[in-house]
Amino acid sequence: MTGSSFGKAFNISTFGESHGKGIGVIIQGCPPGLILTKDIIQKELDKRKPGKKNSLSSKRKEPDTAVIMSGTFNNKTTGTPIMILIENKDADSSAYFQNKDLFRPGHGDITYFAKYGIRDYRGGGRASARETAARVAAGAVAQIILDDYDIRIQTYTIEFGSIKAHNFDFNENFTNFLECPDNNALKKMEEKIKLVKKQGDSIGGVVEIRVFNPPAGLGEPVFDKLDADIAKALMSIGSVKGVEIGAGYQASQLKGSENNDQITNNGFLTNNSGGILAGISNGDDIIARAFIKPIPSITKPLKTIDITGREVEISTKGRHDVSAIPRINPVCKAMMAITIADHLLRQKLNQ
Amino acid sequence: MTGSSFGKAFNISTFGESHGKGIGVIIQGCPPGLILTKDIIQKELDKRKPGKKNSLSSKRKEPDTAVIMSGTFNNKTTGTPIMILIENKDADSSAYFQNKDLFRPGHGDITYFAKYGIRDYRGGGRASARETAARVAAGAVAQIILDDYDIRIQTYTIEFGSIKAHNFDFNENFTNFLECPDNNALKKMEEKIKLVKKQGDSIGGVVEIRVFNPPAGLGEPVFDKLDADIAKALMSIGSVKGVEIGAGYQASQLKGSENNDQITNNGFLTNNSGGILAGISNGDDIIARAFIKPIPSITKPLKTIDITGREVEISTKGRHDVSAIPRINPVCKAMMAITIADHLLRQKLNQ
Amino acid sequence: MTGSSFGKAFNISTFGESHGKGIGVIIQGCPPGLILTKDIIQKELDKRKPGKKNSLSSKRKEPDTAVIMSGTFNNKTTGTPIMILIENKDADSSAYFQNKDLFRPGHGDITYFAKYGIRDYRGGGRASARETAARVAAGAVAQIILDDYDIRIQTYTIEFGSIKAHNFDFNENFTNFLECPDNNALKKMEEKIKLVKKQGDSIGGVVEIRVFNPPAGLGEPVFDKLDADIAKALMSIGSVKGVEIGAGYQASQLKGSENNDQITNNGFLTNNSGGILAGISNGDDIIARAFIKPIPSITKPLKTIDITGREVEISTKGRHDVSAIPRINPVCKAMMAITIADHLLRQKLNQ
Amino acid sequence: MTGSSFGKAFNISTFGESHGKGIGVIIQGCPPGLILTKDIIQKELDKRKPGKKNSLSSKRKEPDTAVIMSGTFNNKTTGTPIMILIENKDADSSAYFQNKDLFRPGHGDITYFAKYGIRDYRGGGRASARETAARVAAGAVAQIILDDYDIRIQTYTIEFGSIKAHNFDFNENFTNFLECPDNNALKKMEEKIKLVKKQGDSIGGVVEIRVFNPPAGLGEPVFDKLDADIAKALMSIGSVKGVEIGAGYQASQLKGSENNDQITNNGFLTNNSGGILAGISNGDDIIARAFIKPIPSITKPLKTIDITGREVEISTKGRHDVSAIPRINPVCKAMMAITIADHLLRQKLNQ
Repeated sequence: MTGSSFGKAFNISTFGESHGKGIGVIIQGCPPGLILTKDIIQKELDKRKPGKKNSLSSKRKEPDTAVIMSGTFNNKTTGTPIMILIENKDADSSAYFQNKDLFRPGHGDITYFAKYGIRDYRGGGRASARETAARVAAGAVAQIILDDYDIRIQTYTIEFGSIKAHNFDFNENFTNFLECPDNNALKKMEEKIKLVKKQGDSIGGVVEIRVFNPPAGLGEPVFDKLDADIAKALMSIGSVKGVEIGAGYQASQLKGSENNDQITNNGFLTNNSGGILAGISNGDDIIARAFIKPIPSITKPLKTIDITGREVEISTKGRHDVSAIPRINPVCKAMMAITIADHLLRQKLNQ
Repeated sequence: MTGSSFGKAFNISTFGESHGKGIGVIIQGCPPGLILTKDIIQKELDKRKPGKKNSLSSKRKEPDTAVIMSGTFNNKTTGTPIMILIENKDADSSAYFQNKDLFRPGHGDITYFAKYGIRDYRGGGRASARETAARVAAGAVAQIILDDYDIRIQTYTIEFGSIKAHNFDFNENFTNFLECPDNNALKKMEEKIKLVKKQGDSIGGVVEIRVFNPPAGLGEPVFDKLDADIAKALMSIGSVKGVEIGAGYQASQLKGSENNDQITNNGFLTNNSGGILAGISNGDDIIARAFIKPIPSITKPLKTIDITGREVEISTKGRHDVSAIPRINPVCKAMMAITIADHLLRQKLNQ
Repeated sequence: MTGSSFGKAFNISTFGESHGKGIGVIIQGCPPGLILTKDIIQKELDKRKPGKKNSLSSKRKEPDTAVIMSGTFNNKTTGTPIMILIENKDADSSAYFQNKDLFRPGHGDITYFAKYGIRDYRGGGRASARETAARVAAGAVAQIILDDYDIRIQTYTIEFGSIKAHNFDFNENFTNFLECPDNNALKKMEEKIKLVKKQGDSIGGVVEIRVFNPPAGLGEPVFDKLDADIAKALMSIGSVKGVEIGAGYQASQLKGSENNDQITNNGFLTNNSGGILAGISNGDDIIARAFIKPIPSITKPLKTIDITGREVEISTKGRHDVSAIPRINPVCKAMMAITIADHLLRQKLNQ
Repeated sequence: MTGSSFGKAFNISTFGESHGKGIGVIIQGCPPGLILTKDIIQKELDKRKPGKKNSLSSKRKEPDTAVIMSGTFNNKTTGTPIMILIENKDADSSAYFQNKDLFRPGHGDITYFAKYGIRDYRGGGRASARETAARVAAGAVAQIILDDYDIRIQTYTIEFGSIKAHNFDFNENFTNFLECPDNNALKKMEEKIKLVKKQGDSIGGVVEIRVFNPPAGLGEPVFDKLDADIAKALMSIGSVKGVEIGAGYQASQLKGSENNDQITNNGFLTNNSGGILAGISNGDDIIARAFIKPIPSITKPLKTIDITGREVEISTKGRHDVSAIPRINPVCKAMMAITIADHLLRQKLNQ
C-alpha cells in the first residue's frame, strides 16, 4: 500500500535504500509559480549530510546532491509532480556483508525479515537513516510555501544524554554543532559525547520543534488534527520514540485551571496547548518535542541471533554516528514543514 | 478533505456533533463472514457511556444505543460498509446557549471559529468528547478481527493527578473504576479526585495501552510505521497531548547498549522498543502511553474573550467529568484496535 | 478498503443495502457557511424516487426521506462531515426469499457470492439501484457548491431502445417523463415501452450529461484527469456499460483536422473535445454520455444456476422498472455534480 | 493533490515532462520476493518506444532505458517502493520554442495555462504522450503479479480510420505493426495511413483490451467497481475519448432478455457483460474498448490564438506520429494490468 506517502494536499512519496542506486521523493500538490532551484534544496540537505567535521558524524562521504528531475520550468514550479533525486555515490556495502545473516539489535533487520521474508541487508536498506534525506529535500520545498505566510520553523536540542538545556535564547545560541540553545549545557553535552564515544556506545536526547507565526485554523477534525498529523510525522522518523505537544507530559500533571491557556485581548496568557486546541492551530507558536533514542549501531558487543536462530554476539562496525542528534534536527524540521504546508493548503478549501 | 477518516485497509469515517441528531461511523474494509451483533458493540460503548455511577462522571444520561444500519446479514458481516448509528437522546443544549458567544479556554471554540467562521456551540459540536463514541463502536468491530489472531488489548491508568501506579499485576487489579493496576496508588487517586472536585477543578494522567500477542511484521516503511500510526491514532483523541512507545522518553536518556533489546533464542531480553523496530512489530507486546491533559471544562472562573473580542470571565457549567480518565481508556483501546486491525489486513498484501 | 468512497477534496462515503435498515452518505470537505436544508436534498431525491406514476416505474413505495444527521447548524454547513440518512421503509423481502439460492442473470448475485462467500440476497443488497439514492443526496449538496459558480448540469435521454433523439432544444423539451429533448422521438419511445413491457422484457438507452458554464482549469494530470474521473463516476453506476466524452466514439473516426477544436477570439469553433483538453476543462460545455444497459430483472424466463450449481430457469418477479431510464438520469447528474465539485475545490489549491 | 497517483493496493505515482530531465514512476505495494529485472521492464517499454521503423512513428530517437533505482535486491522485489527512472536523452526543444506562445488546437496548452498560469511548452510538458512510458514500466511490474495467476492481457486494434476488423483470431494475427487481428482490414488500414500522411493529417481508431483467465471476485462496491476503475484507467490516457465494457454501446440497444448473460454449468452462454457484473469480475474474459482520437499534432494549418489572444494559424511541425495507435496499445495494456493487479491484491483482504 501507500506507506511511503505522506500528506493529502501537499503529498510526498519517497523511495530508496541506503545502498541502492539512489533515494528521492515525488512531491505532488506544490502550487505553481513558486521559485524553486536545486540550491534551495541543497542548502537544507547539507545540514543533515554525513561526514561533516564534528565528533558525532559517520565517515560515509555522500555528496547528497539533489537533482530536480521534473516539475519545474525556468526555475519555477509548474504545478506538476516535482521529483528530486539523490544518487548514492559512496555506498560501500562490504562492511555489511559479514553481518548479512545477523539481526542487529535495535534495528529493523529482524522485523523487515519477518514482514517481507527478504531484506536488503546493506546499510539497513529502506530502514536506513539515509532515507530521511528525501524528507529533507521535500521539506525544503514545503518551506517555500511557508515562506509566503512568513512562517519559520526552528529546531533545537533541549536534552542530550540526560543533560537538559535551560536557557532558551532563540537569537544567540543556535550556531553550535548540537543546535543547543544553552551554552552551559552544551559544554556538558560535549563532554558526554567524548565519554560515550570512548565507550563504544551511543546516546539520545530530546529535540524541540517550534513553528513561529502560524495562522490560526490549521488542522482538521477529527483524525487529521494538526497535532495528530505532527505526531505521525515525527514518530515516522526512525529514532523517535515519543512526541509531545505544548506542555505534553507536564499537562497530565496540571489541574485544568493551570493548564488551560486563558485568553485576553492580547492573546493567550500561556501556551500549554502548544498552539493547538481541539486539533486546530490557535495562532500561537506551535511547539512539539521528539524523544530521540540512542542510535542502535554501537561497537559494544551485544547478544543477538542469526537468520537460523543461532545465538551470537555482534559489534556493529559500519560508519555510524554517536547520536542521531543533530543530524535528525533538520529531518524533524522538514517533517514539520511538510505537515504545516499540507494543512495550509487544505485550509484553502474552507475559504 | 477526509479528516474524519482513518485507516487504509480497515477504514473508518465518523460523523456527528454533541448536540446534533446523532453520531456514528462507516467502517469500510471489514472482512466478510465475521459474527457481528449490536451487543458486541454495545458492550464496548457501555464502558465509555456518560452517567455511570462514580465520582468522575458527567450527569448527561445518554443511552448510547448502537444500531447497525448496514453491512451485516443474519448477524454476519457481508464485506460491505458497516454503518453504526448512535442517536443523541439527552442533548440538552440550554446550558450552552448563554456561552454561545464565548470562547471557553482550553476548548476548540476559538479554533473552530477561526477555521470555519461558523461553529456549532452546543456542547462543543464536533469537538465534543462525545465524538469518540463512534470510535469505540468501530473499535469493537476491529477487535473482532483481532480475536481471530488471539490479540488482546489492555488499557490501564498508570498515572493520575501526579500519582503513579507502580504495581502492574495484569491479572488482579483492573476491576476498579479507574482501571488502575496498583491498589495503593488507587486509594491516593480517589482522594485526589475528591479534592479536585471540591476545588471545581479537573485533572489528567497517563494511560498505558498494551497489545498482547501481536504478530511480527505489522507496520509499513516509512511513513505508515506502526508507531507513527499509533501516535496519530492516540493523538487524535481530544485530550491527548503526548504519545510514547516502549521506553519512550526514558529511551532518550539511555545509552545504546542499555536501550537496545538484545535477542536470544527465547526472544528479546527487554522491551524498550515497545514491540516495534523500524516501525514494524517484532512480536513482543506493543506498548504505548498517552498523556492526558485535565479536561478544560471547570467551574473555577477563568479569563477569556467573546466573539467581539471583549474580555470576560467564564465558569463552565455544563455537565462534565472531573477527568477524561477513565472514560478515555476505552477510546485509547479502540484506536489501538483500529490501528492494529488496519495493519493486520495490510500485511495480507505481502503474503 | 475504501471502495465506497469517492472524491478527494469533496469526498463521499456511502453505505446501505436495499433491504437493510437504511442507506446514506457521509460527505467530507463541503465548505462551511453554505445554506443546506433537507428540502434541497429531498427535491433531488424525489426525482429518482420509486413508485412515481409512470409506466416505467417499480411498485416499491419508498418515501425516501432524507434526514441530515450532522454537519449543519441553523441550516448552514459547518465544515464538518454531513451525514444524510435515508431509512428503508417499504423493504418487503419476501419476493426475494424464494430466489435466495439462485443467481439472477445480469445481476451481481453470482459475483458478490464469488467475492465475499456471503451475500445479502434481499433486493440485490448493496448492488441494488437503491444505493444510488445516497449519491443523489450527495449530488444535491455538491450542486450547492456549483451554484456559487453558476454551473448548471442537465441530463437528457438521447437514445432509448434504439430510438435516437435528434432535436436538442435545451429550453423546451425536458418536462416529459423520459427527459427526452425530441418530442417526435419521445412518442416512438413511449410505444417501445409499452411493447417491451408486454413482452416482460426491459430496455436501455443513452443519457447525455451536460455541464453548462464550467470554468477552465478543472482536472489534474495525469490520472485524475477530469474526463477520467467523470468516466469512473458514471461507470460506477450499476447500469452503465460505457462512457464517452465530447465526440467520443465519433472522434475515433475523424481526422485530426476535423476533430481538433480550432480556437478563435470568440472561443472554440467546435466542441468535439467535450470541453476537456488533456484532462483539464477548457471552459466550454462539458459533455459526457453514458450507455445504459437494459435492467436485468425481467419476467421472461432465463437460464441460470443455483448456489449448488444446479441448472434452473428464473423469472424475476420483484417490483422492478422497465428501464433504468429516467430514474438513472438524476444519478448521472449527481455523479457529475460530485466530480465537478471535487475538482472545483481542488483547483483552489493552485490559486 | 495526488492526481499523478493511481491504485490503492498496487499504487503508482508518476512524474516527468517530455523535455525535462526524465520521467518515471514509484510503485508502492508490489509484494516482496518477485523476480524483477530491468529487462522485464525494457521489453514492454520497447513496444511503445518512439522511432520504430514503421510509417506511423515520430522521428524522436529515445532509447527509453529503464533503470530500477530502488525496491529490488538481487533481482527480487523487497516489498519497498520500486522507483523506475527513464531519462530523457533526445529532448530537442528547439521546434517548440517558436510556438511557445501559441495554444496548439486539440492539445493541453490552453488548459494547462488556464489551470496553472504557467506551462512547460516544450513538447507538451507533462501532457506529452511521453508520460505514458512510466505507465508502461509500471504495467510490466503489474504483469508479474498477474503471471502468478496465469492472467494474460491482449490488446488489438479493432478499428482504425473507420475501417473495422471483423476477424478475431487470437492466435495468428497479432504480429503485424498495427496489432490488427484481421489481415484484410489491415491492408485497408495501411492504405489509409499513407493517404492521411500525405494529407498532413492524423487518424484514430478503437483498441480492444482483453483479460484472459481473470478470477471471479475482483472489484469493489460501489465506486471502485472493476469497470469504473478500468474506465478511469483507460480514460486517463491522453487520446482516449470513450470506454466501453463488454457489449458497451450495443448493450444500450438490446433488450434485457438478449443482454443478460445466461448461466449454465459450463459458465455463461454469452459475454455481453464483458466479464463484470455489478462491478465485480465473474470469471469470464474481461473486455474493454478504448476510443482513440486522432492525434492533434498535424501539419495541416489550423486556427488558434496566442497567449495574448491574437488569432493566428498554426501548423505543428514537431516529430509526431500519424496515429496514437499502435503505440497506445501497450499503454492500454499497462493500465489494465495495473488495475487488475490492484484489485487482485485488494481481494486478498476479503480472504
